[in-house]
Amino acid sequence: MENAVHRLVDPEEFKTGMRSLAGAVNIVTSMYAGCRYGMTATAVCSVSVAPPTVLVCVNRNAKTHAAIEKAGAFCVNVLRDEQCELSIAFSGAQSGEVRFRIAEWSELATGSPVLVCSLVSLDCRVIKKVTHGTHTIFLGAVEQILFGEKGRPLLYVEGKHAKIA
Amino acid sequence: MENAVHRLVDPEEFKTGMRSLAGAVNIVTSMYAGCRYGMTATAVCSVSVAPPTVLVCVNRNAKTHAAIEKAGAFCVNVLRDEQCELSIAFSGAQSGEVRFRIAEWSELATGSPVLVCSLVSLDCRVIKKVTHGTHTIFLGAVEQILFGEKGRPLLYVEGKHAKIA
Repeated sequence: MENAVHRLVDPEEFKTGMRSLAGAVNIVTSMYAGCRYGMTATAVCSVSVAPPTVLVCVNRNAKTHAAIEKAGAFCVNVLRDEQCELSIAFSGAQSGEVRFRIAEWSELATGSPVLVCSLVSLDCRVIKKVTHGTHTIFLGAVEQILFGEKGRPLLYVEGKHAKIA
Repeated sequence: MENAVHRLVDPEEFKTGMRSLAGAVNIVTSMYAGCRYGMTATAVCSVSVAPPTVLVCVNRNAKTHAAIEKAGAFCVNVLRDEQCELSIAFSGAQSGEVRFRIAEWSELATGSPVLVCSLVSLDCRVIKKVTHGTHTIFLGAVEQILFGEKGRPLLYVEGKHAKIA
């Protein structure tokens, strides 16, 4: 099955199609060798309740990818709809430690940076990884959850931030 | 790594946390032995552009799970924000073939049911699967895309359908 050759859709057409798929905006973080790493990501989803597991898809060229791999842990920080600034900062507008000074961060079980004012933060230990093309899918067992501030999730759709009606 | 034992978060706390994570609502379909299968799912995400790949997380007890496994194919039909009725029908309110009579369906490369009036439908061939706990993650190579009707995606958050502002 894995070696079959198929006629695939054109990548540009795929990108256009995926723009329609709205997703919650998260900052996925990790801590390695005393440095904090993070990136904005929408490719996050729930896998199973038993055991509590989420997955994140991360580009193998991202610095956060190397950190997650080495640390064996990550935190999914779900942003509130007022937190566009954080989303933009962690999308490449800024880099390194300076981005973490925009808000307050803490840590829980794994040591990954936890955004104190997120909607919710899921602190995860990597239990499986699947490499596919340019990306790795990291499955994380959820060890601890921080319920941050009340609010609604920030969304990303059609290449723009959006809110829930 | 896969055999490590960790202290996990309580499943009820996990469910509460995941309710905050907004997601687009999709009907994931498959066709096996002349029968159409489908289920509403939010656990869908983009994996990589090269090759164009998406993933769906499906409970192993779902009938659609068996169909996807046997057919080796599925279609992700992204719903528009007017299509609550379809979302509810495929969430268990109805079962079997009757649910497919609510709207018009077609098929593309894989033979999986394609919702003609979706926002976008991604017709996929299964290229990898990862079993984890109660669920299987199916990775699908996107072979063909139908751009359905213009509109905005239907969302699901805090246990309810929602729209984009």
